Amino acid sequence: MVAQPKGDEVYNPNQSQTTLVFYLHDVTTGPNATVAPVIGLTGKVWSYTSFGTIFVVDDPVHLSPSISSTQVGRAQGILTASAIDGSNVNVVISVVFNNLQYSGSTIEIQGVSRQRENYRELSVVSGTGKFRYARGFASFETSFYDAATTRSIIRLTLNMIL
Amino acid sequence: MVAQPKGDEVYNPNQSQTTLVFYLHDVTTGPNATVAPVIGLTGKVWSYTSFGTIFVVDDPVHLSPSISSTQVGRAQGILTASAIDGSNVNVVISVVFNNLQYSGSTIEIQGVSRQRENYRELSVVSGTGKFRYARGFASFETSFYDAATTRSIIRLTLNMIL
Amino acid sequence: MVAQPKGDEVYNPNQSQTTLVFYLHDVTTGPNATVAPVIGLTGKVWSYTSFGTIFVVDDPVHLSPSISSTQVGRAQGILTASAIDGSNVNVVISVVFNNLQYSGSTIEIQGVSRQRENYRELSVVSGTGKFRYARGFASFETSFYDAATTRSIIRLTLNMIL
Repeated sequence: MVAQPKGDEVYNPNQSQTTLVFYLHDVTTGPNATVAPVIGLTGKVWSYTSFGTIFVVDDPVHLSPSISSTQVGRAQGILTASAIDGSNVNVVISVVFNNLQYSGSTIEIQGVSRQRENYRELSVVSGTGKFRYARGFASFETSFYDAATTRSIIRLTLNMIL
Repeated sequence: MVAQPKGDEVYNPNQSQTTLVFYLHDVTTGPNATVAPVIGLTGKVWSYTSFGTIFVVDDPVHLSPSISSTQVGRAQGILTASAIDGSNVNVVISVVFNNLQYSGSTIEIQGVSRQRENYRELSVVSGTGKFRYARGFASFETSFYDAATTRSIIRLTLNMIL
Repeated sequence: MVAQPKGDEVYNPNQSQTTLVFYLHDVTTGPNATVAPVIGLTGKVWSYTSFGTIFVVDDPVHLSPSISSTQVGRAQGILTASAIDGSNVNVVISVVFNNLQYSGSTIEIQGVSRQRENYRELSVVSGTGKFRYARGFASFETSFYDAATTRSIIRLTLNMIL
């Protein structure tokens, strides 16, 4: 089956492929938590491995792993423990930029985080502002975790066609 | 890095860019409410500025700002207060058409509504029916708000490549 | 309005259109349930026709309608009763593959299920692994329902450009 023409001849032959790398700073618990459980199945513990638990997340996004590096935005959205066996979390987040050349733009991400793997690949489904019509994939890799503070540093690599 | 060929030579050089404008009629409270809070963080007020509050929405979609204008569908989905500072709402909605030439089709929207701004840009991530393979961006602009009835009229401009 | 060039000349003229068919095995209630209500509007029954009810789903995905056929993955995500009149369910799911040539890949689906219709078309918004950059549409058709066990077999047809 071949895609058929759908209208006037208008298309963009000049697409560019871009790779951007950022670092999310995620804190699971305590007064500085950047993620919170909202609800879960009645009678079940609320956790990433407990089917049906829904979290809201708002992680700061930095240019480098250092918390003192420039912050360019926030990764905001919903995480849902979507596997009966506890393995996977369904993710719908927007990377909301509010600094540097990215300010006012967003990148939209959807997919599943296979929690038991260090390299977790999700999809870039679109974007806004400078990232209109973006498509691609996003990898999340935990590069640091401190159990005492429940702080993680997660490298986010965005591979996109714009 | 250059995108590599992925299969047989099949692509559509004839894409058309389309702009559609509709009007959402949104009522926040009362017996005619078109949006309802479902759940929020334990011990917190449920509101658009309270991190973790999840709403369900079903706004009628009209051809013009007048409530008596032709209704073409409904904007249905989930809104989540996704910013710790109360600024942003994460949005996943389908514009579900059931009238005129659009009947049976949908447009899928994902993104973040920066509530403090009048022009709020989200992404068109796809569509169905007449809008299969749609991509683009969607702006939401509040053109009318009546505090007494909590009724808003929101202009939705859809810029899409089909 | 014509799409403008956005960068270096890099694009893929070699896209392939693919159709894949799988079968979801969905059980609504009981100890083998593959879907569970998480929360709904206060004071309302939790159901697919009750506005505001949010479900989590994790259906096994098989190669054929038989439960003994090869399982290739799971369809995991969130279902939200998003219509005040009870007609529609908003869907955000990932088809998470863990077998055969698809292992490690996903397909991302978003859209609305018009419950009163047998042919329900949603969008393929993206994918990962072998399905990076996928776009298209997905039809869900119930091919079998057993009221005694609340088991449904749902044919999922994925039409995608890769």
